[in-house]
Amino acid sequence: MAGTNHNKPLIADGPSIILVNPQLGENIGASARAMANFGLADLRIVDPRDGWPNDVARANAAKADHIIDNVQVFVRLEDALADLQFVYATTARQREMLKPVRGPGEAAATLRKRHVSGQSTGIMFGRERAGLESVEVALADEIVTFPVNPAFASLNISQAVLLMSYEWMVSGEAELPISTPPSLPAAKDDLFGLFEHLEGALDKMNYFRPPHKRATMVENLRNIFSKAELSQQEIHALRGVVATLEGRKTRPRKDR
Amino acid sequence: MAGTNHNKPLIADGPSIILVNPQLGENIGASARAMANFGLADLRIVDPRDGWPNDVARANAAKADHIIDNVQVFVRLEDALADLQFVYATTARQREMLKPVRGPGEAAATLRKRHVSGQSTGIMFGRERAGLESVEVALADEIVTFPVNPAFASLNISQAVLLMSYEWMVSGEAELPISTPPSLPAAKDDLFGLFEHLEGALDKMNYFRPPHKRATMVENLRNIFSKAELSQQEIHALRGVVATLEGRKTRPRKDR
Repeated sequence: MAGTNHNKPLIADGPSIILVNPQLGENIGASARAMANFGLADLRIVDPRDGWPNDVARANAAKADHIIDNVQVFVRLEDALADLQFVYATTARQREMLKPVRGPGEAAATLRKRHVSGQSTGIMFGRERAGLESVEVALADEIVTFPVNPAFASLNISQAVLLMSYEWMVSGEAELPISTPPSLPAAKDDLFGLFEHLEGALDKMNYFRPPHKRATMVENLRNIFSKAELSQQEIHALRGVVATLEGRKTRPRKDR
Repeated sequence: MAGTNHNKPLIADGPSIILVNPQLGENIGASARAMANFGLADLRIVDPRDGWPNDVARANAAKADHIIDNVQVFVRLEDALADLQFVYATTARQREMLKPVRGPGEAAATLRKRHVSGQSTGIMFGRERAGLESVEVALADEIVTFPVNPAFASLNISQAVLLMSYEWMVSGEAELPISTPPSLPAAKDDLFGLFEHLEGALDKMNYFRPPHKRATMVENLRNIFSKAELSQQEIHALRGVVATLEGRKTRPRKDR
């Protein structure tokens, strides 16, 4: 989907994303792209199956080069987390350990609060098939999990990264790139002019039958146009439509 | 990521997803998987570049066969929307048309409300590069857009489908698959026993120096263990640690 504005500053901030032992370059690349979409930048990879650099990852990052170029690769998870102060583990598996389990929105709000207070934070994601091992989850402060369909719970890693990145963005200022154009409804005078024009044309064609129902029929028609919040321009267009249908010339041609 | 529970009923409900003129089977498949993750089921495709059925799409759907098997393919977008009563168009491009623009959470809440009241709803997504044309957006009731990084706004289609599917799930009951295990803190009696044991052991080793600081040092130690909300089992483990460090046998061996 298009819409990138190259005049806007690149947002590159927020929690580190830590991928533990990822197998597919496609997922690493898609994770980088998802991070870039929602303003994250620090990607760390622990023991990637296919080593690093990884051309497939770069090809799937859709030009999120500022992330791919700065990936840090680690042999041990402990080293990837070393400078962080608060870390989430993502998992969908119930563990025995007494660690708080949060939904994505709640976790993002916690990360945002800690980030604003100056803490370095991170979110770790496990392997494509097996997820995180308990010994890895034990290194985290809290667990984050997704409200998935219980009978179809297997979330792709880059999709999980996307959801956390999205919730991170939502937890902050989260401006939408576009907005509803300001509506400028016409003055009632113009609207009433349309009513009279339309009802007059219909009267001529004997539309309101039987006559005792005229009042209700008029009311219904007026409601249709009232709720549309018509602009002056739209009313002008509709009067042209009525004039054309009743066989009147709308714009006398100058060359006649 | 693992965690699928095959004993749970499959959630398959909610708005239709309409992909307009998608090019890559990968994206169609990943969209189906994302829909399945968050309980959506009705996928409609308008004029797919590579026709239908599409093996690449199926391979990328991660066994969301209940969706792939029931895909409906249309030549015209109007036909794909024909039975729907309320439709969102996703776009990141500012349009001239006077159509309300919503964020994903707000749009999902609107869809949920209409769905609950019995309306058929849908969300349409445009082509990989070019998105939706204005003439297509004009068929929708409202616009939904994502709070992306303005300098890196190009969201993959299946990621956009995922975000709307996720927000749809969140707008409903949205149960998390796992939860914080119930914490059962020990009775204070046990905790105070640990304090006395530890402080006694430290007294013997002359840890509290100078003596006038003893009270503060004890207080700090007690705070460390108080805030950990220790269970009876954890206190037992810690007393074993203390006993071992002070050189006491913790469990007299039976064979002696």
